Amino acid sequence: MNDRDALTAYAASFVDELAQNEVKHVVVSPGSRSTPLALLLVEHPDIEIHINVDERSAAFFALGLAKALKEPVGLLCTSGTAAANYYPAVIEAFYSRVPLIVLTADRPHELRDVGAPQAIDQIHLYGRHVKWFVEMALPESTDGMMRYARTVGARAVATAAAEPAGPVHLNFPLREPLIPDLDQAKEYRQNKRTPSVLIDSGERSLSASQVEAVATTLSKAKQGIIVCGELPHPEMKEAIVALAKKLAFPVLADPLSQLRSGSHDKAVIIDTYDTFLRDETAKAAFRPEVILRFGAMPVSKPLLLFMKKQKQALTLVVDGGAGWREPAGLATNMIYSEEKDFCLRIAESITSSPDDEWLRLWQTVNGATKDALVSVRDEAELSEGKLFALLADMMPLESTLFVGNSMPIRDLDTFFLNNGKGIQTIANRGANGIDGVVSTALGVSTVSKNTVLAIGDLSFFHDMNGLLAAKLQKQNITILLVNNDGGGIFSFLPQANEREHFETLFGTPHGLDFSHTAQLYGGKYNKVQNWDEFEKVFTGSFEIQGLKIIEVPTERESNLQKHRNLWSFVSQEIKMVLDREIS
Amino acid sequence: MNDRDALTAYAASFVDELAQNEVKHVVVSPGSRSTPLALLLVEHPDIEIHINVDERSAAFFALGLAKALKEPVGLLCTSGTAAANYYPAVIEAFYSRVPLIVLTADRPHELRDVGAPQAIDQIHLYGRHVKWFVEMALPESTDGMMRYARTVGARAVATAAAEPAGPVHLNFPLREPLIPDLDQAKEYRQNKRTPSVLIDSGERSLSASQVEAVATTLSKAKQGIIVCGELPHPEMKEAIVALAKKLAFPVLADPLSQLRSGSHDKAVIIDTYDTFLRDETAKAAFRPEVILRFGAMPVSKPLLLFMKKQKQALTLVVDGGAGWREPAGLATNMIYSEEKDFCLRIAESITSSPDDEWLRLWQTVNGATKDALVSVRDEAELSEGKLFALLADMMPLESTLFVGNSMPIRDLDTFFLNNGKGIQTIANRGANGIDGVVSTALGVSTVSKNTVLAIGDLSFFHDMNGLLAAKLQKQNITILLVNNDGGGIFSFLPQANEREHFETLFGTPHGLDFSHTAQLYGGKYNKVQNWDEFEKVFTGSFEIQGLKIIEVPTERESNLQKHRNLWSFVSQEIKMVLDREIS
Repeated sequence: MNDRDALTAYAASFVDELAQNEVKHVVVSPGSRSTPLALLLVEHPDIEIHINVDERSAAFFALGLAKALKEPVGLLCTSGTAAANYYPAVIEAFYSRVPLIVLTADRPHELRDVGAPQAIDQIHLYGRHVKWFVEMALPESTDGMMRYARTVGARAVATAAAEPAGPVHLNFPLREPLIPDLDQAKEYRQNKRTPSVLIDSGERSLSASQVEAVATTLSKAKQGIIVCGELPHPEMKEAIVALAKKLAFPVLADPLSQLRSGSHDKAVIIDTYDTFLRDETAKAAFRPEVILRFGAMPVSKPLLLFMKKQKQALTLVVDGGAGWREPAGLATNMIYSEEKDFCLRIAESITSSPDDEWLRLWQTVNGATKDALVSVRDEAELSEGKLFALLADMMPLESTLFVGNSMPIRDLDTFFLNNGKGIQTIANRGANGIDGVVSTALGVSTVSKNTVLAIGDLSFFHDMNGLLAAKLQKQNITILLVNNDGGGIFSFLPQANEREHFETLFGTPHGLDFSHTAQLYGGKYNKVQNWDEFEKVFTGSFEIQGLKIIEVPTERESNLQKHRNLWSFVSQEIKMVLDREIS
Repeated sequence: MNDRDALTAYAASFVDELAQNEVKHVVVSPGSRSTPLALLLVEHPDIEIHINVDERSAAFFALGLAKALKEPVGLLCTSGTAAANYYPAVIEAFYSRVPLIVLTADRPHELRDVGAPQAIDQIHLYGRHVKWFVEMALPESTDGMMRYARTVGARAVATAAAEPAGPVHLNFPLREPLIPDLDQAKEYRQNKRTPSVLIDSGERSLSASQVEAVATTLSKAKQGIIVCGELPHPEMKEAIVALAKKLAFPVLADPLSQLRSGSHDKAVIIDTYDTFLRDETAKAAFRPEVILRFGAMPVSKPLLLFMKKQKQALTLVVDGGAGWREPAGLATNMIYSEEKDFCLRIAESITSSPDDEWLRLWQTVNGATKDALVSVRDEAELSEGKLFALLADMMPLESTLFVGNSMPIRDLDTFFLNNGKGIQTIANRGANGIDGVVSTALGVSTVSKNTVLAIGDLSFFHDMNGLLAAKLQKQNITILLVNNDGGGIFSFLPQANEREHFETLFGTPHGLDFSHTAQLYGGKYNKVQNWDEFEKVFTGSFEIQGLKIIEVPTERESNLQKHRNLWSFVSQEIKMVLDREIS
């Protein structure tokens, strides 16, 4: 067997095994060394490939696909710095627990560390930010090595998907010739859905006595809260709500928990804590005995500061992925159990029916805050807060809202409140970067309906290259570009007092006219001047195919003032309510 | 002393030490955790900062500055994926031996691996692609710890600069408060040019007996060649030419060796080998006994294949950086010595005056090839080859030509021949990526006169974000955008035969109209239609300040044909000359 036959047998076996294990999408960047895998992927009938020239964008695009699908997505690039461009998205996938299968082509051993072109050290290229790294063997076509290629493929998919999900990296040394025999490759395709090794991975589940002990602790507490960040599976919504009702605990639900939107019962869902926990009176009114946390740490800084003050409380962190998501440093119990199973079994174990005075106080303050927050809708000028308040009204019934980091996610937290629609909310909260957001949203939009991306100008700028995929693949997305010409979040931080250097180092105004970006990528562009225009353009955008960019111009300084005024108004309202309630 | 005082003393000492060690430029990306260093850098009178929002572009910009200055340049960003965006440029710097001092802000230890925002594992973030990594201590203001901060600063600069130069990475855990006292910081500035520790680093130099042995080997050989890739210091040009003349060896000079341009004697400089070594007759005519190599491996694939055939030859690789730049795998001698010193001492040791028949044969073939290559200038249509042939004529007397990877560097190699101007040629040949090229060229243009970037469309697309620096910092650069709507190099590779998938996987046409890019970044844009227009626009571009983009539209298919026709014509010409010479 010659080299080409060995390449064909080995690489085709591997690629087919990915398909057998239900990898349906691979994002491919053009390159020479990666040719064998690229050709075999594009030829495989069960795999769809997505071309993306900029590998940084490509990796975030794959991340978005995997986030939306909740299943492993593949990535392929050539050797050299191409692979290094994946790093930001690999890190984001690692911390946000998104399954990616990163395939990098490499020079063979004899061309490494000898000054050969596009040869870098790709062994453990992503350091500790992958769950598994394999330096693949050179192609061989013995039965044993074809079996090896398939086994690694199956393991890669299973490892990426197992909780906590995350990226895996397979590095393929490849020699010339790089063109496999595509006819012969078909012989290595097996009947669909017959992985060479079936990997059944169970989930963590507490023993009966562990469940009993936790249930006892929880039912003893009269005053407890449930805190929900981004959850691994939205199907656990009902289970969490059921547990909260059983305990009469309020559920402080992060906007990414998916608990604020949907048809489930929202009586126990507290959605305005980010606002009222800024208020000292409100903060002092609540002294929980127990904090029960699910999912990632919520976005809200006021909530974090509130939790850090509750030194009297037991803090139970439930994590099916057995991580350590507890930056407050106050956990008293780490509970490694699949979350839905945990909720159902604990709820079942609790028989007492608690007094709901505590829950009612939270509901009252939440209601008063919500009433006060409504005033944001009176703002006549375009403003960042009102934009997010309107989104819950104006998004289509079944839709996806992707939000950028920095200000948008915070405004979402403050202003995007409980609603009965099915609005899925997504963001990159593994490492909270402003990079790669456009591409992640485009990956999401590939498999989701009515996708809207709300993003600030610096973050939009950072990943404009991602828009090429929208142009070439004719993707549908509505981008709300909140343009305050620079880094809006810094106005809220102590840096804002450094007047002399503020604009240089933090404000960083760029003066970009993004209509040119829209033209470059064939997008429809509207810069709206007022709310009427916004409403018309936004609702109309879902009737139009392709890329739609709606620029909402705002001002950093007035945005800060508006937020401050609103919070101060809310404080007065809460004070009145609390005076009445507590007296 | 409170936390803020400790932060001020420690960080100000460190920043001042960078300045004492003559770090004059730091490229800063906006962020919060990096605030103390950013503020102290911007305040330091001897340091100039350059703001760059996209960290990937920022790092390449710093690389360009360091390449042009041949001295260490700093980089600063905040924690999280921001730092991961530096990875491609860090890798390029490592392999191309460019000194960078990478400063990353990090969360303090108690906020690591606990799900805190923007906290990733930054320890050894760049793996083996840095020369030195330091996890800095938390700020303390004892004399000992201020001395520590200074010592690390001095070591970082010296380590980055020592041959082989390269990147170093210092990771700074920082707690709030993040605002240092800028008045107090001035107290930690020392009088200029007094490093806390002066690091004198000697260069590798052979012993007298080692020199004698090498000189004997070389002077015994009647037929030898000198091969020069990119050299660490252009000042060694004269020494190499002197040695070549002494030995009567031709110097096969890569376009990045700087040997093809300048006022030095070019009689021994062979500049068309990339063309004539494609010809089997010419290849067979030359059987060197010795190959003496300096610098990085040249770009030319025909040269590499030629050298790989010379199994009879002694291959001596001289490397002052003590690396292993020998992908041909045929080195018989590795000589770790500073290159200029080596040339001067060997030349001095050689007393015999050799026969120059061998050298004349190379000169004759080179001359014939050059005469044949002139025919490229007859091409009426816009073409990639002619463009590079014209550049030597049309570039200003003192100027810098930065070339992109993939096709431009190859066309430069073929068509940019010996000239008497002072044209500096630069490219990113550490890892040969198409990423970050725009930013690297902009970094170069910051400190160089009349900078021209010749780049393909995919590479230009990859780093369009880099152009924001050109807009904001009003930088002068002429960009020759060779647009063949996709990956032109693949037409030259075996992939071109895979007709069915070629355009999808390799050609990757994008259809972008780059006039919108020019408008976005406030650049002057011309898409030229013919050579007259090109000449007018190109020469005129040096009279205009700012960003000038000149698009040269070409076609991939006809480009391939033109190159093939030319090489075939050259082969006929060479055959005639060789028949005459050898008979």
